[in-house]
Amino acid sequence: MIYLDNAATAIPDRECVEKAEKYLFEVYFNPSALYKCGYSVQNEIKVARKNVITAIGNQEAFDVIFTSGGTESDNQAVFCAGKRGNVITTAGEHSAVFNSVNELKMRGIEVRFAELNSDGSVNADKLFQLVDEKTSLVSVIHVNNETGAINDIAKLASVVKAKNKYALFHSDGVQAFGKIPFRLTKDIDLYSVSAHKIGGIKGTGALFKRKNLNLKPYIYGGGQENGLRNGTENVFGIMAFAFATEKKYSSINENYEKVERLHKLLWDNLDKTFFKRISGTNCSPYILCVSAEGLRGETILHEADDKGLIIGTGSACSSNEKKRYSRVILSCGVNDSAAEGILRLSLNSETTEMEILAAAEILNVTVKNRKEIMS
Amino acid sequence: MIYLDNAATAIPDRECVEKAEKYLFEVYFNPSALYKCGYSVQNEIKVARKNVITAIGNQEAFDVIFTSGGTESDNQAVFCAGKRGNVITTAGEHSAVFNSVNELKMRGIEVRFAELNSDGSVNADKLFQLVDEKTSLVSVIHVNNETGAINDIAKLASVVKAKNKYALFHSDGVQAFGKIPFRLTKDIDLYSVSAHKIGGIKGTGALFKRKNLNLKPYIYGGGQENGLRNGTENVFGIMAFAFATEKKYSSINENYEKVERLHKLLWDNLDKTFFKRISGTNCSPYILCVSAEGLRGETILHEADDKGLIIGTGSACSSNEKKRYSRVILSCGVNDSAAEGILRLSLNSETTEMEILAAAEILNVTVKNRKEIMS
Repeated sequence: MIYLDNAATAIPDRECVEKAEKYLFEVYFNPSALYKCGYSVQNEIKVARKNVITAIGNQEAFDVIFTSGGTESDNQAVFCAGKRGNVITTAGEHSAVFNSVNELKMRGIEVRFAELNSDGSVNADKLFQLVDEKTSLVSVIHVNNETGAINDIAKLASVVKAKNKYALFHSDGVQAFGKIPFRLTKDIDLYSVSAHKIGGIKGTGALFKRKNLNLKPYIYGGGQENGLRNGTENVFGIMAFAFATEKKYSSINENYEKVERLHKLLWDNLDKTFFKRISGTNCSPYILCVSAEGLRGETILHEADDKGLIIGTGSACSSNEKKRYSRVILSCGVNDSAAEGILRLSLNSETTEMEILAAAEILNVTVKNRKEIMS
Repeated sequence: MIYLDNAATAIPDRECVEKAEKYLFEVYFNPSALYKCGYSVQNEIKVARKNVITAIGNQEAFDVIFTSGGTESDNQAVFCAGKRGNVITTAGEHSAVFNSVNELKMRGIEVRFAELNSDGSVNADKLFQLVDEKTSLVSVIHVNNETGAINDIAKLASVVKAKNKYALFHSDGVQAFGKIPFRLTKDIDLYSVSAHKIGGIKGTGALFKRKNLNLKPYIYGGGQENGLRNGTENVFGIMAFAFATEKKYSSINENYEKVERLHKLLWDNLDKTFFKRISGTNCSPYILCVSAEGLRGETILHEADDKGLIIGTGSACSSNEKKRYSRVILSCGVNDSAAEGILRLSLNSETTEMEILAAAEILNVTVKNRKEIMS
């Protein structure tokens, strides 16, 4: 089986997860407990916390709140930071932000959506035009989960702050974390990430928070995570996440270069008579979005699946929305026929050249056959 | 080591968790994915869902929403059901409900707290008096997590509904689920449970919901859990939880009787000159709350810890609140001196008679020595 749906979820890193299994059966204590074994788990979480922060930010400037995943992190950012005036986001957000801001709108907050460029990145000028003195929150996805477009969030945050220094800046970094070399800058207030996209397990994520930002919890309870995320800590998930983070960041540049080569190889080997490229030239190498225009992406997905190739059609999460076309892809200005044929091929640092070549061959043959049947 | 802090967290059931490990490394697919492997995980979650529901309720009448834990379940119940008028709860709630209703109060909802009886159960008459035509939600903990008092939630819910049929009834069932033989009744709208208290792992829980109740999600996103709890499903956690649920319910009556005998044995063997019983006579056998009046519970906890006995002092979660006395224990009418000496001994169906006898001995000796030093 060739697995090219790593943006939906990645294969857990066996080494990292097995290292964390100690926290399932041996060190199972409640980290809030007062006896030695409880206290020592709390200390191990502290070390994990520090390691996760330093992977992407300065520990003098940032804290990390461990959450149940990227979606919860996005919810906390949107609902706890977007409280008044207007909230600005983009037409290219993951549904965790998109559906949260739509709920904000239902509650009477004005929500403004910045348009996208054709590669799925936000149109920066349009975004800046939306910011005014009443803006409480700006949320821009770091790497678009459907097209792989990279938004220059450091620059966007800096311009937003120049226009309104009280506006908070959040970014959904789920598809960037552990993949795109990047450091949190002083203008970024909140940054959401997920464990299972980088070799950790489902059910864990984090929200990075600028240290001097006063944020409310979204989940109330027993005071865990400095009162910012309550509920017994998912120790196993947190430790597996911390191990996976350390591992990914120890070779982030090599991985990036390797995946960049594979990404080019994949595109080079796809038959251009059948596939139209949606991803821009500067997209994340971990995601290649193409359209088999005139065909249904889902049909190709199932035929490829039968041949041992696993791919996606846009966001896995949006499959639950049961909409015919992706709202993000349509926002890129793609026509309906191309939107119908969207395929998302997403790579991992473990993906091999042979897999890429075989995947391209399967896709070429599948689409060619299907076109022949239709003609 | 003798572990008598099972109410804080239980040792994961190795058989159940190992059975679920398949969903870490082999069946790691995103359940929302459209290809066969994704779809098949979705189907396995469906089976797990059915098994979890039928353990405690009628699947024609109840749904279950998988969450990140009991705390999140409580938050969804409180924030999504307690939207208007007044919200009624008890002075004996876990901080997941207590701090959530306090946040509701900050948002302008009237919150009314019913008083407790001396064993920590709610005073039912006082509770009923608080219900009026403006009540939107009543939340009563099923088994008090500090004293083990069992509230007759079926009866309470029925009387609440008789007074106001539009009021929703929620119960935090975290310390009851898998332990106290009980079936959800038609008057119970919402019921929160946690996986790691019954042999599952931390980071998973559930909110049972009456099927015809229209509830909003608390975490917005990609449409998972029928749109009621969004974010990629924690498949491993859910499966381990379902296996642990099945196992606990397959022997819930035998376990109850066994733990009842152990509970009696423990109390019988504690030196009554040193220990005052806080738990009532009809408490959950899984929890025995006593006070070493005149001493500090935390001191006893540490000394017992050094001797290989692990116990709690009230709720582990409340240790983060850094308050001297438990608000729940004080609400039972316990004086400060007794509140200071509170110890919570919590059992598991795996606890043995020998452990109970050894634990009683350690506690007796510890308290006796400490009293002698002080005198």
